[in-house]
Amino acid sequence: MAVIHVPSPVDFHVHLRQGQLCSVVTPHVRKGGFKAAYVMPNLKPPITTTEQALKYKQELQNNDPETEYLMTLYLSPDLNPDEVRKAKRAGIMGVKSYPRGVTTNSDGGIESYEPYYPVFEAMQEVGLVLNLHGEVPSDDKTNACVLNAEEKFLPHLFSLHTRFPKLKIVLEHATSRAAVEAVKSLGSTVACTITPHHLAMTVDDWAGQGYHYCKPVAKYPDDREALRQVIRDGHPRFFLGSDSAPHPSLAKSTSTPSQSCAAGIYTSPILLPLTAHLLESFGALDKLANFVGEFGRRFYGLDMSTGNPIVTLREVEGHGVTIQESWKCGEDSLVPFMAGKRIRWEIV
Amino acid sequence: MAVIHVPSPVDFHVHLRQGQLCSVVTPHVRKGGFKAAYVMPNLKPPITTTEQALKYKQELQNNDPETEYLMTLYLSPDLNPDEVRKAKRAGIMGVKSYPRGVTTNSDGGIESYEPYYPVFEAMQEVGLVLNLHGEVPSDDKTNACVLNAEEKFLPHLFSLHTRFPKLKIVLEHATSRAAVEAVKSLGSTVACTITPHHLAMTVDDWAGQGYHYCKPVAKYPDDREALRQVIRDGHPRFFLGSDSAPHPSLAKSTSTPSQSCAAGIYTSPILLPLTAHLLESFGALDKLANFVGEFGRRFYGLDMSTGNPIVTLREVEGHGVTIQESWKCGEDSLVPFMAGKRIRWEIV
Repeated sequence: MAVIHVPSPVDFHVHLRQGQLCSVVTPHVRKGGFKAAYVMPNLKPPITTTEQALKYKQELQNNDPETEYLMTLYLSPDLNPDEVRKAKRAGIMGVKSYPRGVTTNSDGGIESYEPYYPVFEAMQEVGLVLNLHGEVPSDDKTNACVLNAEEKFLPHLFSLHTRFPKLKIVLEHATSRAAVEAVKSLGSTVACTITPHHLAMTVDDWAGQGYHYCKPVAKYPDDREALRQVIRDGHPRFFLGSDSAPHPSLAKSTSTPSQSCAAGIYTSPILLPLTAHLLESFGALDKLANFVGEFGRRFYGLDMSTGNPIVTLREVEGHGVTIQESWKCGEDSLVPFMAGKRIRWEIV
Repeated sequence: MAVIHVPSPVDFHVHLRQGQLCSVVTPHVRKGGFKAAYVMPNLKPPITTTEQALKYKQELQNNDPETEYLMTLYLSPDLNPDEVRKAKRAGIMGVKSYPRGVTTNSDGGIESYEPYYPVFEAMQEVGLVLNLHGEVPSDDKTNACVLNAEEKFLPHLFSLHTRFPKLKIVLEHATSRAAVEAVKSLGSTVACTITPHHLAMTVDDWAGQGYHYCKPVAKYPDDREALRQVIRDGHPRFFLGSDSAPHPSLAKSTSTPSQSCAAGIYTSPILLPLTAHLLESFGALDKLANFVGEFGRRFYGLDMSTGNPIVTLREVEGHGVTIQESWKCGEDSLVPFMAGKRIRWEIV
């Protein structure tokens, strides 16, 4: 029976939400095989100050004290160079930029990067990472829509990297061949996270299927192949960020004429076995430990040799193990990606 | 107050379903301003013989005797040259081809056209029209997915037209610039239907929104612009086929992890005012009468000067008229496109 040892995996992009939802999903990070999580700040209201981030971290620790939470701020006019330095001193690791209106709780997102150049300068100086949700808003006049929103964002990535070559930048949840090629072409300070669901799906999977709807949307088969190939290649600047984004099942499954389904796919509680299963499906199982741990830790400069023991996966005999259909959350439930489907790996 | 007179509009592509659903939606053709409907054969089981088509026509007449039903057969191995001639004698107008598995009830669809060449020969001879659902099935190996399924189908259209230059062919419900350009480039025996919803939507509109999910899916803004422009141009081989495709609201609004929403958008009961509203929105209101009647009748060689009086639309003062939220259908309901939205035209 095959076994894989994964040292100190880190989920470099996760949404742990607030309130009741937070209390359910935060322990699922560990359940999914991870003891460290890079936490997104798009709450209501967004986490824009060090003080808010530390308060939120305390809420997460109350929900599960055994996981290490790597905290971020939400890029907004509230942020200035002084606050950046304060954040660094408080152990905050990055700043997340959301273009306005492209995903869950992004109404306060930015429209132009130029006003933030002094902030980026300070981030570069102290070593905070800039995490980019790399999509432009849809615009009929420029043919921009959810399918090319990422590709049309790439000039911003090039421009930011040129202006701030020492600023560490992560293009989050890449979905397109164009994004993969862009990140590969840039310097050692630019990296990229990839989600498990974008390794599994194409546009066909979310057509008419709310549970598979997320932002950025999954693209063409050839785009998915580019994501798979860069993992097969073992490229050290591409690593796991689940973008696990729970919503109650009612919001995922149901649309009304005036309300679409919520965007986001939930993978936290099954993350490591799911990732192993998917990497195996396209011949990259030997890259698992690097993809889910080593590469990201190295890019972020994290030393997690203590407190994050090796996680062991074992191959399941026969037809595999069935992913739980849902988890209770108040009066609703959370349905994970591939609910009810079988995967070939489980945590020992 | 502005008024438009529309002589003998025909909906050249409509799904009138079976049983209870059929009894509800068939009278909606007339409610939507149309007294003639070109009826799709993708029932369960599909309409593959003249006898079935005539029986179905009787069911439609029982539901609304005042509408003229232009009947079609479903291309399948049951069809042969003799049956084609029999169909022609019985007044059947066309044969619809569905590639296998691309839309509602297309499991019996075709995989290759060559076996049907004798059938097409007979159709060309007697003057039956070939109606094409122009999409190839998705295939990861060729990067085929719902977004490029239509463009990848176009070589089949070129090939069929080359081999059967006198066969009248309609590429149904075009959604892409590539399809528009292809049809424009071909001879006078090739035409194209366009739906109202593809004039309104892009991919953004169906992302996470079951009520806007249909096949073919709406594409990029630039594709929508190509559809709008060819109508503005008054091109005589592009005309209305609503592809009105009702499903109970539960099937439209809800997905489960193992079941997607039903594909199809319901426009029959509001078709003429909706089309006027949309054409006006992109500066083509003066093309309405040709788009919804004259061009299609001319292509099909229909003389409908009798029995199909002029339909009159009037502009609604103020904020327009609200589209009904739904129609009752058994214990469920049918929700039309733009339910609850206001449009500027109504039937007198």
